[in-house]
Amino acid sequence: MSKVYLIGAGPGAADLLTVRAATILAAAAEVVLADDLVSDEVLARVRPDARILRVGKRGGRPSTPQSFICRVMVRFARQGKVVVRLKGGDPCVFGRGGEEVAALAAAGIDAEIVPGLTAGIAVAAAVGIPVTHREHCRGVTLVTGHGSDAGGEPDWAALARTGTTLVIYMGLARLLNIAARLIAAGMDPATPAAAIASGTTPAQRHVVARLAELPARVVACGLASPAIIVIGEVAGLARAEDLAGFAAQAQACAA
Amino acid sequence: MSKVYLIGAGPGAADLLTVRAATILAAAAEVVLADDLVSDEVLARVRPDARILRVGKRGGRPSTPQSFICRVMVRFARQGKVVVRLKGGDPCVFGRGGEEVAALAAAGIDAEIVPGLTAGIAVAAAVGIPVTHREHCRGVTLVTGHGSDAGGEPDWAALARTGTTLVIYMGLARLLNIAARLIAAGMDPATPAAAIASGTTPAQRHVVARLAELPARVVACGLASPAIIVIGEVAGLARAEDLAGFAAQAQACAA
Repeated sequence: MSKVYLIGAGPGAADLLTVRAATILAAAAEVVLADDLVSDEVLARVRPDARILRVGKRGGRPSTPQSFICRVMVRFARQGKVVVRLKGGDPCVFGRGGEEVAALAAAGIDAEIVPGLTAGIAVAAAVGIPVTHREHCRGVTLVTGHGSDAGGEPDWAALARTGTTLVIYMGLARLLNIAARLIAAGMDPATPAAAIASGTTPAQRHVVARLAELPARVVACGLASPAIIVIGEVAGLARAEDLAGFAAQAQACAA
Repeated sequence: MSKVYLIGAGPGAADLLTVRAATILAAAAEVVLADDLVSDEVLARVRPDARILRVGKRGGRPSTPQSFICRVMVRFARQGKVVVRLKGGDPCVFGRGGEEVAALAAAGIDAEIVPGLTAGIAVAAAVGIPVTHREHCRGVTLVTGHGSDAGGEPDWAALARTGTTLVIYMGLARLLNIAARLIAAGMDPATPAAAIASGTTPAQRHVVARLAELPARVVACGLASPAIIVIGEVAGLARAEDLAGFAAQAQACAA
């Protein structure tokens, strides 16, 4: 019986895969179950005769149930296939890697995690933001903004007090709410912030604003998911906004 | 004039370099300034005719001053050389990437950041710990433990309240102090915790204990830097301790 590789596809650009991930995808993979956050550029590196199953959420359709994904992985692994579960970013940062390893173990199947660059750090760097900087913060906190999972909302008030850079995944839709909570918890409304969409890919676009103004700017400029939000002094180091190709929105932004 | 690449070498294993980093090192690099955290296995991938300068802290000697490193990068870049600044992990996570980009910009030299896997996430995964897990935490916070930089100590009390997994870099020497502060701030002394030394390399070793007992266990088992400390429920998912090759220490541990 084969083992299953849980591979992080990184933030988007295919050459930001690790050498280990690229090698497994190009040489060993027989069945690949890919999330929708995995870019076409990355999928183009998969062995041509491998079977690729897209199992993510697409175009408003409900996402493939986790239990179905696990059953498919187990079935192919029991057939002796080399199975790859390919996830955007890193499997262990909001990627349910831990849950899938446990489900596979329960079925008697070994899993090997191959880490990937997590988008929150790599996408920030792609617009010139170092998520940590000795002069500006004590560290960095990665959280999700969607608040829909069991366990509920992060404690925004506690987060605001840590003095760490905040990096928010999947937070664009609730940004107005999140910004309000952080400010209510005492975070300076003038704190630098940035939102970066489709980071490291040719579609990368970003906006920069003070925390209090970021939600309006994201809407005005038509920034869309997937996006990463960075809040903290380091966001002030971001390069000038890049909205190339979004002519109508850029005009709205400038207005 | 050439630009300078600030490249993250990742946690240690050479095949955990990104494809982009490996390509630049193997094909383009003419001068490489490498930190000591960069493994020999990674340096073996550098173009054979490139000049490698080790500029990190070694064997108790003082580290090379940051200003000297920047001067050397500028000098070689002005000679038209392809210069690589190679750092363990990611250049923007406790890697001073932001400072070096600014210093290069001040000298009129472009810098390009090539992200790497940050050790805190990849090393945790290497012992079976997913740094986030929906059932256990709301996110993950990466901080340093050395407390010697400008800006001082992280706010351990605020961090303890965030409900995020804590990942501490460079914290082994001050672990007793850090654990005491977290517990004083209300963190459960029975919180699962782990320390992993030399993660992803052949020298990888790790110990697992409750927060209150971790400092003693690290000492008993002779764990040495570089190490990553993980504190939070997810640390309970770590694989059994691996102290292979440390026979004497393992015996002391068992006692």
